[in-house]
Amino acid sequence: MIKVGIVGGTGYTGVELLRLLLSHSGVEVAVITSRAEAGVQVSALYPSLRGHLDLAFSVPDVSVLATCDLVFFATPHGVAQNMMPALISRGIRVIDLSADFRIRDADVWADWYGQAHGCPELISEAVYGLPEVNREAIKSAQLLACPGCYPTATQLGLIPLLENNLVDPSDLIANAASGASGAGRQANVNNLLSEISDSFKAYGSAGHRHLPEIEQGLRDVQPEGADAAQLTFMPHLLPMIRGIHATLYANLQGGGKELSDAALQDLYETRYAQEPFVDVLPWGSHPATRSVRGSNVCRIALCRPQGRDKIVVLSVIDNLTKGASGQAVQNMNIMFGFDENEGLRHVALMP
Amino acid sequence: MIKVGIVGGTGYTGVELLRLLLSHSGVEVAVITSRAEAGVQVSALYPSLRGHLDLAFSVPDVSVLATCDLVFFATPHGVAQNMMPALISRGIRVIDLSADFRIRDADVWADWYGQAHGCPELISEAVYGLPEVNREAIKSAQLLACPGCYPTATQLGLIPLLENNLVDPSDLIANAASGASGAGRQANVNNLLSEISDSFKAYGSAGHRHLPEIEQGLRDVQPEGADAAQLTFMPHLLPMIRGIHATLYANLQGGGKELSDAALQDLYETRYAQEPFVDVLPWGSHPATRSVRGSNVCRIALCRPQGRDKIVVLSVIDNLTKGASGQAVQNMNIMFGFDENEGLRHVALMP
Amino acid sequence: MIKVGIVGGTGYTGVELLRLLLSHSGVEVAVITSRAEAGVQVSALYPSLRGHLDLAFSVPDVSVLATCDLVFFATPHGVAQNMMPALISRGIRVIDLSADFRIRDADVWADWYGQAHGCPELISEAVYGLPEVNREAIKSAQLLACPGCYPTATQLGLIPLLENNLVDPSDLIANAASGASGAGRQANVNNLLSEISDSFKAYGSAGHRHLPEIEQGLRDVQPEGADAAQLTFMPHLLPMIRGIHATLYANLQGGGKELSDAALQDLYETRYAQEPFVDVLPWGSHPATRSVRGSNVCRIALCRPQGRDKIVVLSVIDNLTKGASGQAVQNMNIMFGFDENEGLRHVALMP
Amino acid sequence: MIKVGIVGGTGYTGVELLRLLLSHSGVEVAVITSRAEAGVQVSALYPSLRGHLDLAFSVPDVSVLATCDLVFFATPHGVAQNMMPALISRGIRVIDLSADFRIRDADVWADWYGQAHGCPELISEAVYGLPEVNREAIKSAQLLACPGCYPTATQLGLIPLLENNLVDPSDLIANAASGASGAGRQANVNNLLSEISDSFKAYGSAGHRHLPEIEQGLRDVQPEGADAAQLTFMPHLLPMIRGIHATLYANLQGGGKELSDAALQDLYETRYAQEPFVDVLPWGSHPATRSVRGSNVCRIALCRPQGRDKIVVLSVIDNLTKGASGQAVQNMNIMFGFDENEGLRHVALMP
Repeated sequence: MIKVGIVGGTGYTGVELLRLLLSHSGVEVAVITSRAEAGVQVSALYPSLRGHLDLAFSVPDVSVLATCDLVFFATPHGVAQNMMPALISRGIRVIDLSADFRIRDADVWADWYGQAHGCPELISEAVYGLPEVNREAIKSAQLLACPGCYPTATQLGLIPLLENNLVDPSDLIANAASGASGAGRQANVNNLLSEISDSFKAYGSAGHRHLPEIEQGLRDVQPEGADAAQLTFMPHLLPMIRGIHATLYANLQGGGKELSDAALQDLYETRYAQEPFVDVLPWGSHPATRSVRGSNVCRIALCRPQGRDKIVVLSVIDNLTKGASGQAVQNMNIMFGFDENEGLRHVALMP
Repeated sequence: MIKVGIVGGTGYTGVELLRLLLSHSGVEVAVITSRAEAGVQVSALYPSLRGHLDLAFSVPDVSVLATCDLVFFATPHGVAQNMMPALISRGIRVIDLSADFRIRDADVWADWYGQAHGCPELISEAVYGLPEVNREAIKSAQLLACPGCYPTATQLGLIPLLENNLVDPSDLIANAASGASGAGRQANVNNLLSEISDSFKAYGSAGHRHLPEIEQGLRDVQPEGADAAQLTFMPHLLPMIRGIHATLYANLQGGGKELSDAALQDLYETRYAQEPFVDVLPWGSHPATRSVRGSNVCRIALCRPQGRDKIVVLSVIDNLTKGASGQAVQNMNIMFGFDENEGLRHVALMP
Repeated sequence: MIKVGIVGGTGYTGVELLRLLLSHSGVEVAVITSRAEAGVQVSALYPSLRGHLDLAFSVPDVSVLATCDLVFFATPHGVAQNMMPALISRGIRVIDLSADFRIRDADVWADWYGQAHGCPELISEAVYGLPEVNREAIKSAQLLACPGCYPTATQLGLIPLLENNLVDPSDLIANAASGASGAGRQANVNNLLSEISDSFKAYGSAGHRHLPEIEQGLRDVQPEGADAAQLTFMPHLLPMIRGIHATLYANLQGGGKELSDAALQDLYETRYAQEPFVDVLPWGSHPATRSVRGSNVCRIALCRPQGRDKIVVLSVIDNLTKGASGQAVQNMNIMFGFDENEGLRHVALMP
Repeated sequence: MIKVGIVGGTGYTGVELLRLLLSHSGVEVAVITSRAEAGVQVSALYPSLRGHLDLAFSVPDVSVLATCDLVFFATPHGVAQNMMPALISRGIRVIDLSADFRIRDADVWADWYGQAHGCPELISEAVYGLPEVNREAIKSAQLLACPGCYPTATQLGLIPLLENNLVDPSDLIANAASGASGAGRQANVNNLLSEISDSFKAYGSAGHRHLPEIEQGLRDVQPEGADAAQLTFMPHLLPMIRGIHATLYANLQGGGKELSDAALQDLYETRYAQEPFVDVLPWGSHPATRSVRGSNVCRIALCRPQGRDKIVVLSVIDNLTKGASGQAVQNMNIMFGFDENEGLRHVALMP
């Protein structure tokens, strides 16, 4: 039984983390912090937790957090980097769900996030927590940077093609759509039900912060000598709560053009055969986000419209689960030697 | 480990039953029937089950079902009553999620369901599966009639008042609203997203089939000599998938009028103190259906607007869980001596 | 052609008012104010108005507003009362969509709104703008208080019964539900899509500000000698944008009990026969809010469940149209002698 | 005043057509047919029309329809082609909202629609009713084929680029999403609220029937000598009622690469300057489908992510209005010499 703390427990990734950890046999949630709600029972803010958790929010305090074996940060960017040195130096293991340690180049981070990085010296310590790529490094990570939601769906969808250099890396497209919970639990007119229900639109076309993270991750898996992956990334906002759907386009190149549908399908099935949380559907399927609602699974399907040289990959996750808190628990399981499925066996809620 | 079969597994209560049973440590799902989908993998119809269940639908066959310890019926009304004698006579225990055995008077059943009852001789064998009222009888039931969704929310909300004769039983109102999944997975223009999304309306004002079931249940808990409970029941259709919300109105009478808010609150808390799936919120709370989404809990709150003699009870459940499949699993746990929580420990999915 | 100004044009009632006025043949929108958005084109904030309106928000200025024939206030409560004396004294006619002048007793207003009334001396000048009751007085009103959304749906549903003393006035219930646009366009966590989509709950059980307005209106139509109408009012929040649905319960009394369904139906049809915006559906109908989406109509239907003495009235409006801006335009038409339908001929948007 | 008939008035394009025609000053709706609902008042099926239309459905009858100046077909494909010769030979003008006469090659039509074309001899008579391309031909058309919803949004978004050969025509992508009303008012499990609410998925990846229509339309506007436009078309299903959003990707080529953002923006603004129903938003905008809900406008915006050579065009319409019935009315206005805006001046319903 390990003791864990959660910094920033009032947001959606916080409550999702609690939902999952409360079904985990090897974890005790000992601390959960919130300056704004200090003293308030967590279950008073989230009645869904009544009867499951008897714990109040407390003011974040390094000395208290340091009594934990593991601390999760479920905070906006810019928070984890400030508390990180104190925790790392005390030998505490940390899983950061925010963007603070995902990008290896501090200058790139500063450009996209509009502020200098507060702790650049620890960036190189961070392990990028995409288990399907980095499982070995994750096992021994002290500071784990949990991937973003769009980056998870996009990378898992494109990795098999890029690893094998089967598509033109200079012309990749991720047309992605997210439920509104991706924007967090912030008082913001733009996320009111009256603003976004019964409507659909793109956003962030001038550049979304997940773009550099995705390109970095895609380039990491390319074979040596390949042109650096370059992505057109267009996010959209769905009139619903949970779910990310990525529709990925790439142009088959070289030997890729000669591959049969069956061979492409086999490529994906083989690549992910041992992965507990990647499910490759039959060729031509259309995974729905509801098929992963509340579960940690990424479902992927392939098609090749009209048999032309454009391959289309459909990839869905729950942005709060495999796109955030579920992936964090998966990483925790790897780091602490739990069964990778522990706390993550939920069947998606359908309908 | 008991072997269970499910008759009629293609509907929403069927897939919900599977979701719950797959997380139950003491159950093996051995058979699941559907004439229409015979031979099809269940997970092909419901991709959410991929990786969790390797079983195909089969044609319903009593001799196969009779190899199970327990058979669930997740069928429209009129189906279970036809197969019931064959199963009961073989000593199989049955939990019927349909309406076939909920009403004790076969003539009343025939009036409301518009057909003669196919198996009136077994009605008296059936135990009405509301554990909060009938737990002892449930333990030894062979034929269990699982309550309807509206009846569950309404009865749990009114029982403490009626048991103690604190309100006028002749003037009860249940203004209730259900998500669209309550109408099942039938091809019906009236349940298209384009028909019911972004809209709200009442239905069934001429008489809903749950009315006689509710009145029967309410009368069962009244003290001797009280006037028979009489309910105005108005169901409404919500533009959402899961959830029932019952707003219950009653006029305090006699000693009831003298009770303080605290005393009324205490009445409910005491009544349900030992109930694992009834959660009484603080006085004046407003339980949201999302607080029970995917969970087996019924959350109840009380208020007394303007301190007048009208008491209002708010009661929410997930219509597919405590209102159907979760309650069925709870009954199974009681019947077979499992921990009553087993398979039902899910935290509600929120947001 | 009259010149109108709008104070507070950035909210939902403001943009709805513009939508309607832009289709009105006798009105020129000359001024629209917003401190926060001063200088910004209205159509930049509301792209739906691109091509229909070339006007920028301006800082509110009495001398500019005084050049209008009519000023609408589409502001939160507490704003109109401060600017009102200056406009009234200049002889400008005003339609206030806020709650400032709806309640005739300044102390009651202060109790429910938690602040002293800023302009009690003008309250007696205000005409309550429910045309179905006050059409004559509206014609010559200088200061018109436009009814709230719940009060409109509730009063129109109950008036025929109360005018004729057919029901027990001491035990009226309005179980009402509103779309999220009723809460306005405020940055508030409680109104995020992720908080209220796919869920349903009651709110305001401790007392909603529309209660005293409704009771005042109901009492106004009662015959002399009747007991004062007393209402249990329970509002609920719907996971959708527009629409109010009121389910109204009353106990038939005296001669009311003897009335046939046809006689009750006739009572309503006769009462509203000349009303352009009240539509009485056939007995036993279930009006859906979508049937009035974007239109100024109130649709009403009656039923009497199980033939008992409880009559149930279903009443639906669009909270932004008949519940706010449409009713404001209807009042304007009456005040300025336009055809009462002008600008209000839109067919509801369905589906 | 012209007399019009509508064949197939029970579907969503039928009721939308009625909504628009009822606000048109020059049209009398004389006939509306439905075999299934013959004898039923239209307003009984669609209560939104109560008070606006006093007409019953009738069985389709050529001799009755032939008394009209214009007949609309709002039917599934395969219906119009059977009745067309009888109407055309009588000199009646026809606007067909179905797919029967959109594709000029009868064999291509047969391939995609899975049946032989029933009236190939009239295909060459048909004018494709996209006013922004074919206004002159529309004026004198007797048989007008109204474009599909996806084809309208996609063509309007790509035409300026293709007309000027600024992008590689062999690698166009339309990643499009539609509200559920696009699937019509058919009893189909796949379109139940419980199936598609709160979820998102692609569909039709094996080939959607709108693909050949779009490619035909795009090729029509290309300059001579250009390679034939070739499109990857991926439709998706949105959890909402109305709206189409097309996210269009193309690779700038030749001189196109040298164009500044301002020049590209100017290209679009100039191309559509005289079009009453195409609105080009400022560069980098994100048009939301709600900005056109219930209106006939197509809103378009451009961006060029990271300044690379991929241009992205965002194009939104209401699938039932500009994507079907509104465009039909626009075509009628052109054919009969009405003001092109008549009956189409509605401001979008927002929120």
